[in-house]
Amino acid sequence: MKLTILGCYAATPRTISNPTSQVLEIKNRLFLIDCAEGTQVQLRKSKVKFSKINHIFISHLHGDHFYGLVGLISTFMLLNRESDLTVHGPKGIKEIILLQLRASGSFTGYNLYFNELESKESQTIFEDDRVVVKTIPLKHRIYTNGYLFQEKNIERKLNIEAVENYNIDKVYFNKIKFGGDITLENGTVIPNSELTFDPQVAKSYAFCSDTIYDETIIPIIENVDYLYHESTFLESEAHLSERTMHSTAKQAATIALKANVKNLILGHYSTRYGNIELFKDEAQTIFQNVQLADDGKEFEMD
Amino acid sequence: MKLTILGCYAATPRTISNPTSQVLEIKNRLFLIDCAEGTQVQLRKSKVKFSKINHIFISHLHGDHFYGLVGLISTFMLLNRESDLTVHGPKGIKEIILLQLRASGSFTGYNLYFNELESKESQTIFEDDRVVVKTIPLKHRIYTNGYLFQEKNIERKLNIEAVENYNIDKVYFNKIKFGGDITLENGTVIPNSELTFDPQVAKSYAFCSDTIYDETIIPIIENVDYLYHESTFLESEAHLSERTMHSTAKQAATIALKANVKNLILGHYSTRYGNIELFKDEAQTIFQNVQLADDGKEFEMD
Repeated sequence: MKLTILGCYAATPRTISNPTSQVLEIKNRLFLIDCAEGTQVQLRKSKVKFSKINHIFISHLHGDHFYGLVGLISTFMLLNRESDLTVHGPKGIKEIILLQLRASGSFTGYNLYFNELESKESQTIFEDDRVVVKTIPLKHRIYTNGYLFQEKNIERKLNIEAVENYNIDKVYFNKIKFGGDITLENGTVIPNSELTFDPQVAKSYAFCSDTIYDETIIPIIENVDYLYHESTFLESEAHLSERTMHSTAKQAATIALKANVKNLILGHYSTRYGNIELFKDEAQTIFQNVQLADDGKEFEMD
Repeated sequence: MKLTILGCYAATPRTISNPTSQVLEIKNRLFLIDCAEGTQVQLRKSKVKFSKINHIFISHLHGDHFYGLVGLISTFMLLNRESDLTVHGPKGIKEIILLQLRASGSFTGYNLYFNELESKESQTIFEDDRVVVKTIPLKHRIYTNGYLFQEKNIERKLNIEAVENYNIDKVYFNKIKFGGDITLENGTVIPNSELTFDPQVAKSYAFCSDTIYDETIIPIIENVDYLYHESTFLESEAHLSERTMHSTAKQAATIALKANVKNLILGHYSTRYGNIELFKDEAQTIFQNVQLADDGKEFEMD
């Protein structure tokens, strides 16, 4: 699992920083999370293969989280994309994108699907044989979801020694990995538990931006390996944080602590602060494993 | 009069180039022409004062000419803009912008006006005491206008010697500059022509992008000081130019020649060409005074 930060600053794009967008590589799938203005240029800078992105997850309809989406969809078109693209995001996103595509008189040559969200409960919005994605309902000025990405490690680990002892043929290995018992030629049944170990621990990543301090998300994000939690402000600007429905670094750390996550990544910094190390310092008064997101930074999560 | 090119390449934003946007400073007014994704960052790079932009002219609703508009409007909001902003552009632009502002639950604290265009004839869309702006109907895949910016030098130049000879008081100078005759104390009428010279020649700039080769624009842009004419392709790709309703460098130069303009600026280059000098070379086989637009380049037009 690998996270690439394309942009992690609040509000407007600047010459030195970009609003929210990130790419999560998980089990060989590439997911784009939020898509502010400038995302496609940031994707190019980070050398992300455009064609590998098949799902885009938009948290909410503030400009600094999705104004780059229509341009990216258009660029996919110019690149002669053929594979399906699904955009998961708040209800209303489809009308915004299609209105603009219609106005430009151009339509995608690929299938463009919208999974419009309006539930205030956490729900599974994507699942295949390797990954599950669930929403994390957040509290912000408008309807907002965070996203929980979980690996699915259903393949059990082969106990090579045991398999060799029983002289089991290779052709049965896949059956064993997926939990099957084996009947030997003499009729003896070897239970799967004798032939395998438990699967590797499945990794998980929770993206929470933008949001107030909200303990109701804790049961959803509990024990995740990595939590990205917005920290637009420091405690010294707690009044602004409250008014604009954002969080402080200390609040982000408190959520990380209470949810027993393994690592906290901070981001969505207000551009009023010259030095983002201040966010880390504040968070570490509460929770130790803090890392700072920054544009172009990559987090290897294995 | 000064033109700053913020972006002048066709299609998608790239790490090394930007789609169309430019700023025209004319008679102390600042006009933004087109507003592709990335425009606000380009404005910052060129140190253009955001607050001085009161009129934005959008040529057409292809993304590479206006996907940065909604973000810029939002940024004006975050910067607590108070002065009015008028967006001139094709019918439909208002719905696109307002739909997105509504979805974000945020509205501008300043007056945001839309002058939606749908006429296929040239019309005057802006006029004050110093500048006139007219549309230049262009032929492209969707409804498109170029824009003609003309200085208005209505003030005649005072003939200081004559005025002193007649011993005319300063308080009448403004009347004289605006064409008035003067009656001396002895009753003699001095005609304005004796007291003034003709006004300074008024400068003009025509922006024509995107468009096919179209001679019907010639009467509108005739004799302008500077013509920006798109040249997406070279003649070697004339077949693509025709299919996509763009122009070649040679065609742009032919329009410049036939319209008797003083200077031609080329732009809107397809990113397939590594070296934009090729556009200049091709154009100069037809018309001599050719300059190449490039991102960040400034043209002093006095």
